[in-house]
Amino acid sequence: MKRRAAPVKRKAAVPDECLCYKIFMPIIESIPNVSEGRRRDVIERLAGAVRATPGARLLDQSSDPSHNRSVFTLAGDADSLEAAIVALFAVAVDAIDLRQHQGEHPRVGAVDVVPFVPIEGATMADCVALAKRVGAVVAERFHVPVYLYEEAASDPARRNLEDIRRGEFEALATKLASPGWTPDFGPTSPHPSAGASVIGARMPLIAYNINLNTDRLDVAKKIAAAIRHSSGGMRFVKAMGVKLEDRNLAQVSMNLTNYEKTPVFRVFEMVKREAERYGVAVLESEIVGLVPAAALMRSAEYYLQLQNFSDAQVLEKKLAD
Amino acid sequence: MKRRAAPVKRKAAVPDECLCYKIFMPIIESIPNVSEGRRRDVIERLAGAVRATPGARLLDQSSDPSHNRSVFTLAGDADSLEAAIVALFAVAVDAIDLRQHQGEHPRVGAVDVVPFVPIEGATMADCVALAKRVGAVVAERFHVPVYLYEEAASDPARRNLEDIRRGEFEALATKLASPGWTPDFGPTSPHPSAGASVIGARMPLIAYNINLNTDRLDVAKKIAAAIRHSSGGMRFVKAMGVKLEDRNLAQVSMNLTNYEKTPVFRVFEMVKREAERYGVAVLESEIVGLVPAAALMRSAEYYLQLQNFSDAQVLEKKLAD
Repeated sequence: MKRRAAPVKRKAAVPDECLCYKIFMPIIESIPNVSEGRRRDVIERLAGAVRATPGARLLDQSSDPSHNRSVFTLAGDADSLEAAIVALFAVAVDAIDLRQHQGEHPRVGAVDVVPFVPIEGATMADCVALAKRVGAVVAERFHVPVYLYEEAASDPARRNLEDIRRGEFEALATKLASPGWTPDFGPTSPHPSAGASVIGARMPLIAYNINLNTDRLDVAKKIAAAIRHSSGGMRFVKAMGVKLEDRNLAQVSMNLTNYEKTPVFRVFEMVKREAERYGVAVLESEIVGLVPAAALMRSAEYYLQLQNFSDAQVLEKKLAD
Repeated sequence: MKRRAAPVKRKAAVPDECLCYKIFMPIIESIPNVSEGRRRDVIERLAGAVRATPGARLLDQSSDPSHNRSVFTLAGDADSLEAAIVALFAVAVDAIDLRQHQGEHPRVGAVDVVPFVPIEGATMADCVALAKRVGAVVAERFHVPVYLYEEAASDPARRNLEDIRRGEFEALATKLASPGWTPDFGPTSPHPSAGASVIGARMPLIAYNINLNTDRLDVAKKIAAAIRHSSGGMRFVKAMGVKLEDRNLAQVSMNLTNYEKTPVFRVFEMVKREAERYGVAVLESEIVGLVPAAALMRSAEYYLQLQNFSDAQVLEKKLAD
């Protein structure tokens, strides 16, 4: 049987006759969150900037008019992603004025947060280096102050996005001037319309919401407080209770920041049990955006009590290996 | 962004410089079940016969000493698979003597059953044609009677593997001589040591076992009778109760023949509930061989009550598209 060459970790010349359809370059993912969720023309310009960048792929986009925020999912090699993010900034800084911006989701910048996530063949170190490079470039080109966060943070006290963003755009001038909050790149005063940006590197996270069969927001808030790490819950869970006005439902809205260590199924079971205390059932759950296959595989294994299961047993994976 | 060429459905010349690693020829899968699960040297010879066949890939193998049976999963184009199965027969007919064979799993041949399953770009008709071709070849070369089954069956009464195999090797001479049981290829008397073989074409199935936390074989048999289609249970389930002597456990051993219509999680829940009636818990479950990703994804969706989930949200799939 012909042996295949091992996957190459550097950009290689791809012959035109190559008819295969799997990516074989080191892949990094980026999930820029931009403070525009209502004006379709601006959202299209933002998506267009990514699509026009050679080597960058726009995997997914979603916009939330209540949040007035859009989330784009990009993948590609480091250089292509740098170019795509710079192009995204160019549109955002031109089109978005935070002095006019209102929405349910906290924000500090037109381009609010840009995480880089290692996927195939890339390391966290690669992503940290990329975050720093991109941070320096956008600060210089667009005169936007940049804070590095998570794995790229220059200070343990500045790892957490919520801590950096606290006060939002409106309190940014004060924050930038205060001790311990000098930005990692760029000016020590906010960009007048684009604010500041938070750029970093982290593991993949899962945006996971559980809708409860109730309209009682207080129940969702109590469950969120029970389950999130900050107030005593599981280590890699961020959570808040929100009300879905259009459906009259309470929702526990979560980010699972390390699905390998704090898995989806354990979070689900805990929310379900906490809801029972209030006589409330789980109506449904939803994943927003992309999810690594392993997160769902581990859930199936858990509920089916699967023993000795290996991802190598998945047919599609075996065929692609 | 560079557009990828669409996947080609015919064998194409692959340049040596092509560094990609996804198969792009029409793919058929074959899952030969061979009556040897104890002698490692024989099992290695069987695997080696497949590996030595150009164009055939050995995706998976598993052996069960209690069943005294091994299951190999192969993939490739029709011609390569024909060569691999013939090579497998050569080893099995030489090394396995059913007159000395004892094991928990019913068997009628040294190579007991050989299904062909359409995967990428291949059709059921391709697989039926291949089954007939291989059946004729092995019958002629090894003097083994061959019955065609499932989609390749020459008679609706001979579709079902259990009906063909009933009586096993020990009653084969009688069966071969009885009306309605003339083999599709080969002699009307058993091969003295290799018995007969059953060859055919079918949709992918999942070999799924549930181990109960008991040594009571009667419990496993009752649950198997409750869950399998033939005695009143779910439509696409075949099941039997077996005893795992080495672990002193009772097992419900199943084939799920249409996991889209009769899904894994529904079968699991029913077995679990039936076991409760006997005061028995499910200890664990296991998948033998390969499983389509969708079967596990649907299970995760079920237990997590996932709403509006699409496979397009799976990161790895998105990257491969």
